[in-house]
Amino acid sequence: MADFLKTGRKIIAIGRNYSEHAKELGNAVPTEPFFFLKPTSSYITNEQSIEIPAGCEVHHELELSVIIGKEGRDILADDAEDYIAGYALSLDMTARNMQDKAKKEGRPWSASKGYDTFTPIGDFISKDQIPDHGNVDLSLQVNGVTKQKGNTRDMIFSVPALIENVSSIMKLEEGDIIMTGTPKGVGRVLPGETITCDLAVDGKVLSQLTFPVIDRPLPKRK
Amino acid sequence: MADFLKTGRKIIAIGRNYSEHAKELGNAVPTEPFFFLKPTSSYITNEQSIEIPAGCEVHHELELSVIIGKEGRDILADDAEDYIAGYALSLDMTARNMQDKAKKEGRPWSASKGYDTFTPIGDFISKDQIPDHGNVDLSLQVNGVTKQKGNTRDMIFSVPALIENVSSIMKLEEGDIIMTGTPKGVGRVLPGETITCDLAVDGKVLSQLTFPVIDRPLPKRK
Ligand SMILES: [Mg+2]
Ligand SMILES: [Mg+2]
Ligand SMILES: [Mg+2]
Repeated sequence: MADFLKTGRKIIAIGRNYSEHAKELGNAVPTEPFFFLKPTSSYITNEQSIEIPAGCEVHHELELSVIIGKEGRDILADDAEDYIAGYALSLDMTARNMQDKAKKEGRPWSASKGYDTFTPIGDFISKDQIPDHGNVDLSLQVNGVTKQKGNTRDMIFSVPALIENVSSIMKLEEGDIIMTGTPKGVGRVLPGETITCDLAVDGKVLSQLTFPVIDRPLPKRK
Repeated sequence: MADFLKTGRKIIAIGRNYSEHAKELGNAVPTEPFFFLKPTSSYITNEQSIEIPAGCEVHHELELSVIIGKEGRDILADDAEDYIAGYALSLDMTARNMQDKAKKEGRPWSASKGYDTFTPIGDFISKDQIPDHGNVDLSLQVNGVTKQKGNTRDMIFSVPALIENVSSIMKLEEGDIIMTGTPKGVGRVLPGETITCDLAVDGKVLSQLTFPVIDRPLPKRK
């Protein structure tokens, strides 16, 4: 499953799974999970650049991703552990001004969440390295200043509950990932800034990532 | 590219690309393209069953799909033909009651468009069989009664315009598909009914498909 970036076919991203984050954007705290899809073409890996498209106000959302290890449909929360291969530290980059417009107009979120480079992600973390997915520390800095700091214990819906919900709608396949939502502290990043983030369990850092932020390059034309 | 169902990683589906269809759902005719993502896990092939999940009012949307043949980013409409490998006849099944609720609440469309079996699709049609993607006849019957009948000449945004728009946001990759929107006549289907549809060029049928409609089976529990 270490090759999920190349073989995985979907990215399911959970919305508003930390109540403090729902509130900071002025949204109600959800009573059941909801999600959207991001394209796998938006993956970038450590030290690659996050691109800001012209006209977009792009926010960082720091998230624990769960990597699916085998196919399943209508998975019960009680059986969910069997379907988890591992984890990764990830960012759900979001063109917030476009997303706000889409929400107002009842339009899909796909473009605002799916630009190239909008899913920065770290290496595969095997399941045994995270004994409890409900106790993982996440933190993110912009130019060295801490912006997001959370623990997965503050999720509204646990990882097993998310797997049950998603798989009741769309089957999960090997290499798919579920991005589990972001803690509070989301904010805009600008070209020239650098995002760093890490994931730790009991004080031990398991993933540490750096992403420079640049303008999306203009298309090369003949 | 005949194996796009197994290798392709994204399904980009265009909204409201025929003005008569936009009007029938009470929507404004868009001034630029917009799209959403469907998961590749929702593909089914000819004669497989479309499943109706409990509580969902599921509509058929008949669409021409364009199969992408090579990777490209910021593709100009003028260069778009180079990126087309072929076509397929397809259905964008939609849980309309869920989608209406999502639109009202500013939520993503992904669940209402992404249930298992919600992307019935036919075999690969090579590019040479469709000399003009702007002149393709599409028709759909429910239990033998014609419900949708359209021609791609009535698209608001042409296939090259769609490729330019989508690839300015997310790069296209080999095996990705773009579903180009549905002509008017969408409507609900019920378990026990059968959908048939075909795609023809100059009176010659290139694809002809049959999909029985059933209730989504209850989960098997131990
Ligand atoms: Mg997020
Ligand atoms: Mg996808
Ligand atoms: Mg459609």
